[in-house]
Amino acid sequence: MTPRVVILGCGFGGLWAAQGLRGARAEVTVIDRTNHHLFTPLLYQVATAGLAAPAIAGPIRHILAKQQNATVLLAEVQQIDVQKKQVCLEDGARIGYDYLVVAAGTVNNYFGNDAWARFAPGLKTLEDALDIRARILLAFEHAERETDAARRAAWLTFVVIGGGATGVELAGTLAEIARRTLPGEFRHFDPRNARVILVEAGERVLPPYTPDLSEKARRQLERLGVAVFLQKKVTGVDAEGVSLGAERIAARTVLWAAGVKSSPLGASLGVALDRAGRVRVEPDLSVPGRPEVFVVGDLALIEGVPGIAPAAKQMGRQAAKNIMKSIAGKETLPFRYRDYGQLATIGRNAAVAMLGKLHLSGYPAWLTWLLAHIYFLINFRNRLVVMIDWAWAYWTFQRHARIVLRERSK
Amino acid sequence: MTPRVVILGCGFGGLWAAQGLRGARAEVTVIDRTNHHLFTPLLYQVATAGLAAPAIAGPIRHILAKQQNATVLLAEVQQIDVQKKQVCLEDGARIGYDYLVVAAGTVNNYFGNDAWARFAPGLKTLEDALDIRARILLAFEHAERETDAARRAAWLTFVVIGGGATGVELAGTLAEIARRTLPGEFRHFDPRNARVILVEAGERVLPPYTPDLSEKARRQLERLGVAVFLQKKVTGVDAEGVSLGAERIAARTVLWAAGVKSSPLGASLGVALDRAGRVRVEPDLSVPGRPEVFVVGDLALIEGVPGIAPAAKQMGRQAAKNIMKSIAGKETLPFRYRDYGQLATIGRNAAVAMLGKLHLSGYPAWLTWLLAHIYFLINFRNRLVVMIDWAWAYWTFQRHARIVLRERSK
Repeated sequence: MTPRVVILGCGFGGLWAAQGLRGARAEVTVIDRTNHHLFTPLLYQVATAGLAAPAIAGPIRHILAKQQNATVLLAEVQQIDVQKKQVCLEDGARIGYDYLVVAAGTVNNYFGNDAWARFAPGLKTLEDALDIRARILLAFEHAERETDAARRAAWLTFVVIGGGATGVELAGTLAEIARRTLPGEFRHFDPRNARVILVEAGERVLPPYTPDLSEKARRQLERLGVAVFLQKKVTGVDAEGVSLGAERIAARTVLWAAGVKSSPLGASLGVALDRAGRVRVEPDLSVPGRPEVFVVGDLALIEGVPGIAPAAKQMGRQAAKNIMKSIAGKETLPFRYRDYGQLATIGRNAAVAMLGKLHLSGYPAWLTWLLAHIYFLINFRNRLVVMIDWAWAYWTFQRHARIVLRERSK
Repeated sequence: MTPRVVILGCGFGGLWAAQGLRGARAEVTVIDRTNHHLFTPLLYQVATAGLAAPAIAGPIRHILAKQQNATVLLAEVQQIDVQKKQVCLEDGARIGYDYLVVAAGTVNNYFGNDAWARFAPGLKTLEDALDIRARILLAFEHAERETDAARRAAWLTFVVIGGGATGVELAGTLAEIARRTLPGEFRHFDPRNARVILVEAGERVLPPYTPDLSEKARRQLERLGVAVFLQKKVTGVDAEGVSLGAERIAARTVLWAAGVKSSPLGASLGVALDRAGRVRVEPDLSVPGRPEVFVVGDLALIEGVPGIAPAAKQMGRQAAKNIMKSIAGKETLPFRYRDYGQLATIGRNAAVAMLGKLHLSGYPAWLTWLLAHIYFLINFRNRLVVMIDWAWAYWTFQRHARIVLRERSK
């Protein structure tokens, strides 16, 4: 009987695993709760109205249409039954597997303060991005209608919590929107007076980078107009603003980029997890004691491997290879991470890059980031449209996706 | 004191009125409940996953940014107080006017069967379009998971109610999606077996056109794979399908294109309305007895003027001119509709056009439609992106906006 491989999640890890099984003598079933694979490195562009949602999302079943051994199901997985080798869906259906790849990724982590989620959305899904886009655009709309100066100032204050890559991207782009995109469009205030504050609990932004690059990133943020608050711990978030201990910032728009934790699916594997809920996998990416179950992407914990797209892709590909080896009765091979470097963008002509020993910042880093992202979007047919959108945005400072859906304005 | 002109609604009528007052000695306030002007003739393309929402929507305040006498407010108007010359917003605020342009347009009309709205959404707003897109795409996803043949067939049956321009566009495009876009992407059924049924109560589709063009449209629809049911009256719509008297169609996706009625704002003008809620205006587009209040677009009833975008634009422009004349103490002028013809698209290379005495169908009509729409999109910066999307869709049969947001799948 043809072995059944079930892949949970179709982010970079899951999709690369599925494609790695192209041509394999296996029945591959890919299950995702959305119909699209998402190019998450550009999600902040959707959130900040620079790109339309379809520009960074492709239908999974279209991507895998020509892979005859792959079936795609839109479904929510509720749990994994590792004893019976079955996956349980939300409607009670069970899907049996011979091999399982868990690529369920991460969700926002409010570190026990889940009540903050309403007031400070994180950026993990397209829905999150459109929610954040609506909040940002509507804040300026409210400011235009507000007559009280203090209340207007609160509508024009944007706090981004968390100084990692996502926080830096959001804060830098927000500052650009206020200073470059919107001026001239409002009659009752000057958008350039909007405040963008990036709050980081640690002592520098972009902690995975070297201290010199963190410092360069901080300076670039401040040049763009972002106030960077370091070593400030958030103690409260509500509809009116953010508390940093005794300090209080009145802000109607607060965005959460302070951390993620693993998908709860990791827990149903019945093995030890780290504090963030990640699964400590064997060198071949399998789960301890379950050689038929592999964990890839952000859900997998391997020392020295960062939670970024290239790592997830490499793990997905390796899991596929190991499944094929196992089917063929051969030994699986350990995963080896190839570090191509890390890039973080901050804004127009502003970025940092750590490419092995080569450290870049400013325009050279930004150009590297731009070219890398256009290159990696090549699997999407959207690259041309994205390039046009970007070229247009670069020259005009405009952002073409400034659309709020009405139900989001409520 | 500078006269205050308030414009309600920023569709074609409202936007053209606002732009017609560029340079006028007047304070213009444009109020819309969305932040965007919508290029409605292409809304069906968003609903059928051919275009992303931002491709056909532009932020109103960006469009009017350089018009110094114009202020844009995002707000919901609750009613018009014609006695006090005030507009009442949803938050209780009141905005006084010296001149008012009501361009509030239409809403879906279920002819007293409002309970059908849940099961058969209409296509008036971007939210509607994204709702319809999700229903269409999810129907195929459900079919892939469904094992019962009859239930799967119901997921693969699409009923479009109403044979006007919107119904014809939706039905033709749906047939193309089933026959050309999706084949090869599903493992448990062939999308080409999906049924698309267009139901029209009258004796022909596209009633505003001549009978020969209606007949040509019907034949083109059938060639694309649409079953056209004429002289069938819908007597029931529910979650499982549509009733046509004794006849029953099991269909999980039903779309409403059978009619519109005027925005309820027309009623607050306190003048006589026709059955569809439209305001019978004076020849200069003002409301009888209220020379300072103008009604333009679909909300205005003038014999011989169709409810299409070019007519709304012309009325908006004329209302602006008449307001300027009135401010200058001159006589207002009657509105004269210039008929440039009508175009309806059906699908790839399929359309009908009525351009004065010139009647076109098939490829020549479709090319005319394409060029006209690209030309009229020129006011949007999106035309290049739209053209690329279309060129790509034409050659590949693919549709790039096949994205379902999760909250819509519930």
